[in-house]
Amino acid sequence: MAYELYYWPTIQGRGEFVRLALEEAGADYIDAARESEGVAVMMRMMQHAEHPPFAPPFLKDGDTIVGQTAAILLYLGARHGLAPKDPAGGLWTHQIQLTISDFVAEAHDTHHPVGVGLYYEDQKTEALRRAAEFRDNRIPKFFHWFETILARNPSGNGHLVGKTLTYVDLSLFQVVEGLSYAFPKATARALKRAPLVTALHSAVTERHRIKAYLESPRRIPFNEEGIFRRYPELDG
Amino acid sequence: MAYELYYWPTIQGRGEFVRLALEEAGADYIDAARESEGVAVMMRMMQHAEHPPFAPPFLKDGDTIVGQTAAILLYLGARHGLAPKDPAGGLWTHQIQLTISDFVAEAHDTHHPVGVGLYYEDQKTEALRRAAEFRDNRIPKFFHWFETILARNPSGNGHLVGKTLTYVDLSLFQVVEGLSYAFPKATARALKRAPLVTALHSAVTERHRIKAYLESPRRIPFNEEGIFRRYPELDG
Repeated sequence: MAYELYYWPTIQGRGEFVRLALEEAGADYIDAARESEGVAVMMRMMQHAEHPPFAPPFLKDGDTIVGQTAAILLYLGARHGLAPKDPAGGLWTHQIQLTISDFVAEAHDTHHPVGVGLYYEDQKTEALRRAAEFRDNRIPKFFHWFETILARNPSGNGHLVGKTLTYVDLSLFQVVEGLSYAFPKATARALKRAPLVTALHSAVTERHRIKAYLESPRRIPFNEEGIFRRYPELDG
Repeated sequence: MAYELYYWPTIQGRGEFVRLALEEAGADYIDAARESEGVAVMMRMMQHAEHPPFAPPFLKDGDTIVGQTAAILLYLGARHGLAPKDPAGGLWTHQIQLTISDFVAEAHDTHHPVGVGLYYEDQKTEALRRAAEFRDNRIPKFFHWFETILARNPSGNGHLVGKTLTYVDLSLFQVVEGLSYAFPKATARALKRAPLVTALHSAVTERHRIKAYLESPRRIPFNEEGIFRRYPELDG
């Protein structure tokens, strides 16, 4: 039976980390909220499920519903060879994903520092300050951490964990994609000091299934409703 | 061999979720950064470990180092009977913890909406706006979600998962403690509409080991350096 992924149908957002894993795995899945009436079905499931997800994305696999991006990837990674099989390796991979989740939340908050209930235009003054802090301190700090992990991987510096691709390689690719869209100047500066991150991003782009996905209509273009938004005043 | 927990020695912070699990389990552990030179040891481990944690807390168990609060609890829960043994139950418990992590991050950002690199006093204007949004919309939304999960637990509404205590019950207890300290008025209002959350909080307070811990010097009092800070101007 095909997986059903539920996520907002017009943005990449957090759902994109799950889409990339499903695509790389060649898994049979439906991007269910993009089907007719899909959002209404998603909202009903969030209301009525025995295990209601707090927010999208969530994945339905038969009778199982899994929410929280990192938990979905933990679930999929083990089933599709996108994570190490040994428990310690699996947990380390998950730990990296949780750190990526923190980074993504901070990227989101650059345009919503006051809260998700208000429009960007109503919190622009605060956003200018938060984005400066994010550009100057947080992007370099996170990139340095990824660069360090790649350099220390005993199996080689082409992957974050082990000697083959895992879901965190895909997630780091997506973070670089998103930041390059939202903060092209600041991200280009940070990537200059992170050659291993840059190389991993390029290598993922060239993977057969990812390349096909990125060129397909299944890949939603970045836009100003998602997590990574291009507001030129926030870059610099 | 005793576990070694590494976390900032003067605050409850994110480390407290781990401390509570270790205490309830009756596990042998050292709160290692509170020992002499402990912070220096912690900083060196973050610099030099093969699997460097991005930030505290992290747990050392022999040669294994696990970072990220939710990942540490996933690791401990399975070893100490603080999570269901079946994979689906374990993942659901973890999903709840990840949602608690999101809630805690939002609580933190009420006093640091611009960024962690600046003092509260330098972002007070922004904090006033963010705290209002958090009090009026986010606390009620998260509490409603916890209340719903408790009500739908097929094993009874005394626990978030199953019929015995799990680490997420302890974490929800800690969230209620922290919010009651930081936002006493707003939290009292929210608790009135969440009787099952209120009852769970009380029940955890009465647990033998937790009660002993809370009365011991091992429990650091809340203060204005942690995640939950009492700034009266942010409550209301």
